[in-house]
Amino acid sequence: MTLTDIEIAQAAELKPIQEIAQKVKLDSDDLELYGKYKAKIDFTTTKRLAGQKNGKLILVTAINPTPAGEGKSTVTIGLADALSSLGKKTMIALREPSLGPTMGVKGGACGGGYAQVIPMEDINLHFTGDMHAITTANNALSAFIDNHLFQGNLLQIDSRRVIWKRVVDLNDRALRHVTIGLGGPMQGVPREDGFDITVASEIMAILCLATSLTDLKKRLARIVIGYTFQKHPVTVADLKVEGALTLLLKDALKPNLVQSIEHTPALVHGGPFANIAHGCNSVLATQTAMKLADYTVTEAGFGADLGAEKFLDIKVPQLEKAPDAIVVVATIRALKMHGGISKDQLSTENVEAVKVGFSNLQKHIENMQSYGLPVVVAINEFSSDTKNETQLVKELCRKLGVEAALTAVWEKGSNGGVELANAVLMAIESSSEGFQPLYNAEETSIEEKVTKIVQQIYGGSRVLFSKKALTQLKTFKTYGWEKLPVCMAKTQYSLSDDPSLLGRPTDFDVTIREFVPKLGAGFIVALTGDVMTMPGLPKSPAALNMDVDAEGKVSGLF
Amino acid sequence: MTLTDIEIAQAAELKPIQEIAQKVKLDSDDLELYGKYKAKIDFTTTKRLAGQKNGKLILVTAINPTPAGEGKSTVTIGLADALSSLGKKTMIALREPSLGPTMGVKGGACGGGYAQVIPMEDINLHFTGDMHAITTANNALSAFIDNHLFQGNLLQIDSRRVIWKRVVDLNDRALRHVTIGLGGPMQGVPREDGFDITVASEIMAILCLATSLTDLKKRLARIVIGYTFQKHPVTVADLKVEGALTLLLKDALKPNLVQSIEHTPALVHGGPFANIAHGCNSVLATQTAMKLADYTVTEAGFGADLGAEKFLDIKVPQLEKAPDAIVVVATIRALKMHGGISKDQLSTENVEAVKVGFSNLQKHIENMQSYGLPVVVAINEFSSDTKNETQLVKELCRKLGVEAALTAVWEKGSNGGVELANAVLMAIESSSEGFQPLYNAEETSIEEKVTKIVQQIYGGSRVLFSKKALTQLKTFKTYGWEKLPVCMAKTQYSLSDDPSLLGRPTDFDVTIREFVPKLGAGFIVALTGDVMTMPGLPKSPAALNMDVDAEGKVSGLF
Repeated sequence: MTLTDIEIAQAAELKPIQEIAQKVKLDSDDLELYGKYKAKIDFTTTKRLAGQKNGKLILVTAINPTPAGEGKSTVTIGLADALSSLGKKTMIALREPSLGPTMGVKGGACGGGYAQVIPMEDINLHFTGDMHAITTANNALSAFIDNHLFQGNLLQIDSRRVIWKRVVDLNDRALRHVTIGLGGPMQGVPREDGFDITVASEIMAILCLATSLTDLKKRLARIVIGYTFQKHPVTVADLKVEGALTLLLKDALKPNLVQSIEHTPALVHGGPFANIAHGCNSVLATQTAMKLADYTVTEAGFGADLGAEKFLDIKVPQLEKAPDAIVVVATIRALKMHGGISKDQLSTENVEAVKVGFSNLQKHIENMQSYGLPVVVAINEFSSDTKNETQLVKELCRKLGVEAALTAVWEKGSNGGVELANAVLMAIESSSEGFQPLYNAEETSIEEKVTKIVQQIYGGSRVLFSKKALTQLKTFKTYGWEKLPVCMAKTQYSLSDDPSLLGRPTDFDVTIREFVPKLGAGFIVALTGDVMTMPGLPKSPAALNMDVDAEGKVSGLF
Repeated sequence: MTLTDIEIAQAAELKPIQEIAQKVKLDSDDLELYGKYKAKIDFTTTKRLAGQKNGKLILVTAINPTPAGEGKSTVTIGLADALSSLGKKTMIALREPSLGPTMGVKGGACGGGYAQVIPMEDINLHFTGDMHAITTANNALSAFIDNHLFQGNLLQIDSRRVIWKRVVDLNDRALRHVTIGLGGPMQGVPREDGFDITVASEIMAILCLATSLTDLKKRLARIVIGYTFQKHPVTVADLKVEGALTLLLKDALKPNLVQSIEHTPALVHGGPFANIAHGCNSVLATQTAMKLADYTVTEAGFGADLGAEKFLDIKVPQLEKAPDAIVVVATIRALKMHGGISKDQLSTENVEAVKVGFSNLQKHIENMQSYGLPVVVAINEFSSDTKNETQLVKELCRKLGVEAALTAVWEKGSNGGVELANAVLMAIESSSEGFQPLYNAEETSIEEKVTKIVQQIYGGSRVLFSKKALTQLKTFKTYGWEKLPVCMAKTQYSLSDDPSLLGRPTDFDVTIREFVPKLGAGFIVALTGDVMTMPGLPKSPAALNMDVDAEGKVSGLF
């Protein structure tokens, strides 16, 4: 009988979080406890650590995701456990999950099987309240904006051009498009508005890129909430509420410490979308882990074209440290899908399909190598994989100068990750530290940045800018925004902007429909097609199965 | 120089919460720590305590509030500190504050001066996340409802008759009246909706009345979210999400332990509105305090006509214990306002106005005595009070058989509350434990319950029911809801339903505009006039002054 993730997690022995902290030389004074198994790390500690040397950083990314599943978080956790089991002082740095999807469809974001971070029930629900603090700060800003409109609108904000939306940390499609301020002159100023899911809030991106409380406040002050009737940008600083917003976020900025099932210390902190934001855990968490551990294993969202590109071009400048190795996760089943095989045929051996689908993996390997970084491929094993198939992938990887290791961490925990861990250690050793970013943000125009990403990372031909996008580019130049990095909002399923083009598409163009300025986060979002920022619930939401008994024991979470 | 509340709180020495817990014989295993100075009390502990004997319960209430301020929470905390200083094992049970007002106008809900519960910055902001859990559960239910409408509406819910509203824990008037589900057939089912502030959510009332996780789930299942096209009530049980909602609330149900400035253990838990809900902290917190301490000092919202009446007729049946003494808080300044004096004349001695205004205090004393409970009056001192004025109040009280004690806990902490503490101890000793509820809920119709409250507590003449209310009463009878207690939603400023009638109005009628069924909370709300369930922000919100420095130190909170 196969156990579910929650059954495995509940059967696991949790060590007191102080004991986990001691593994990386943190004592009780460094921790703010949240129950027995969760803690936040105090600002005094992050400050104290600032002077220390960085350990090695390993970034886990993947091929373009398919419905077959890749298991990137699981490999991240399993790799860290394997490094720990080899005697390396290791930490995990992961994103924290959003409640919306948890109540809706998918499993949690805590890994799976014997490679999980725990207590997974807490992490997948309210955890230490970071999401709620972000929701509250986001919506407090909205309330301040609408109150400003109501109280005389001194700043002359054009209510039709407020771009700051409200959020809930739920899947709630009915809130995508709303009208607010109805009911007459005492009830507000009527206008169109909409709700995003909390993880799509710019405040989430800000929290994940801020390097200190002071930096957080500066970033919040820079947020553009909309435009005046004269089309001048209006910022949080104009509303004078950056202090209040920082106050609401001060505890959320502190990294959260938990543990893996095998007791590797894990910082689980921040979880921005990987389309309209950069999709990786907080800079403060990654920095803290690198100061405390010799090896930090972290993860970027979606495939390497979105997640890793943003990690390297948006997060690394804040982190002031590039990864020492990149792990690209693939599965034989997913490669078969990229090779044109349908979901119901994946369990049949098909070496040819693997070969065709390998093109997707190959492009991601080449991309990562173009940044000057050593790459290792993790083949996350399924029982239907055949020796012929895995052997082929290993050979094809070797031709690209890359080691491919089989991992079975879902089933076996750290034991299933030793081959990968050794390959990663070898790659790090051979690393020449020759990191080259894709572009220099200050010296490259927004058009050029987008074009470099589309041509060099996605492998596309031309970038087509809509009329609106072209107008925006001109305006942004007058505002002095063209020196910011670009954050691409594109489908995760394809290297192109068409989700149906699997494998390694060529000869395609990418259309930029619109830009969205995220001055607080410090990037300009480029929208290709529609981007979903508020998911809906399915016909039978996961919530229908959830329960808690009289003693507080949780069931049906996953 | 007078220090502000936050300056006094920040200068206070905080003891580790384990040390506070030890005062009432709780050890580390009983606590879930939230940082060093906050903890939740585990369910195993509340269960273990269930068999133990109750200590004495002291309920603090007040005259009808005026803009002059009464300081009810401050007296509650100061009285408990004074009891502690007299060697009595004492606990405080208080409501937790809502973020909305904190960001808007008023000070926090943590008391004031040297009678505060701390860390007040935490308690006034996110605290242990209870409010956020309630917000999330409330809005998850909304998402489930709208998803049901979207996915085919099997239950035949009439989208025009959904009575379940969304919430935010903010003052946000623009969300009072909204239309949702706009944008076309893929985006939802358009309908009118509105947002209340979180503390007005029925889930807040439920959390505060639930006696266990099992009871919580049963209450959530009973919530009526709206009606079908055939006008049958639709409940959470029909949607099958009571398990998921209980899961979201399981930690929020645990009482929060903090301390007063003088280190008296305080349970600060739950904070429902005192108009459309019953306005007192959770049953679980009060029960836990009574098991742990010899004296528990707790508080009810607004004046005694609203807060104490509901405490006695709605909370006591769940608590299975009536108060052993009632403290009615008044100030000389507020009595002058009830005597017809305007706010700018309050600092001038006016014995005649105090005498006239005493009528308000007298009615509340008589009301509390009608429940068979011993009463003590606390005159919360201001520097402008004169000997003649306070002496008059003491004499008038004595004629009613009630001791009136001067308190100066804001300025002097426990030292300022000893006279009151001694008076309360004496009242408890003389208590004959002859508690008489106003009505027997099971045997009295809703009309009769309302009439009893209006005539016996408010001192009114007739109750007028609107046509709508009369129709509802008929329908409610067919649903079997007439055995529930009534929760009056009335202005807090007057004994009548007209906020301008101060003192002790007579010969007035009260109009019941509408009833609102709160089946989960277990009461029927009777609305008199408009009740504000979503406050707005003022022109210059308190948030404009708030800040946090590079080290995380908070300023401008109050």
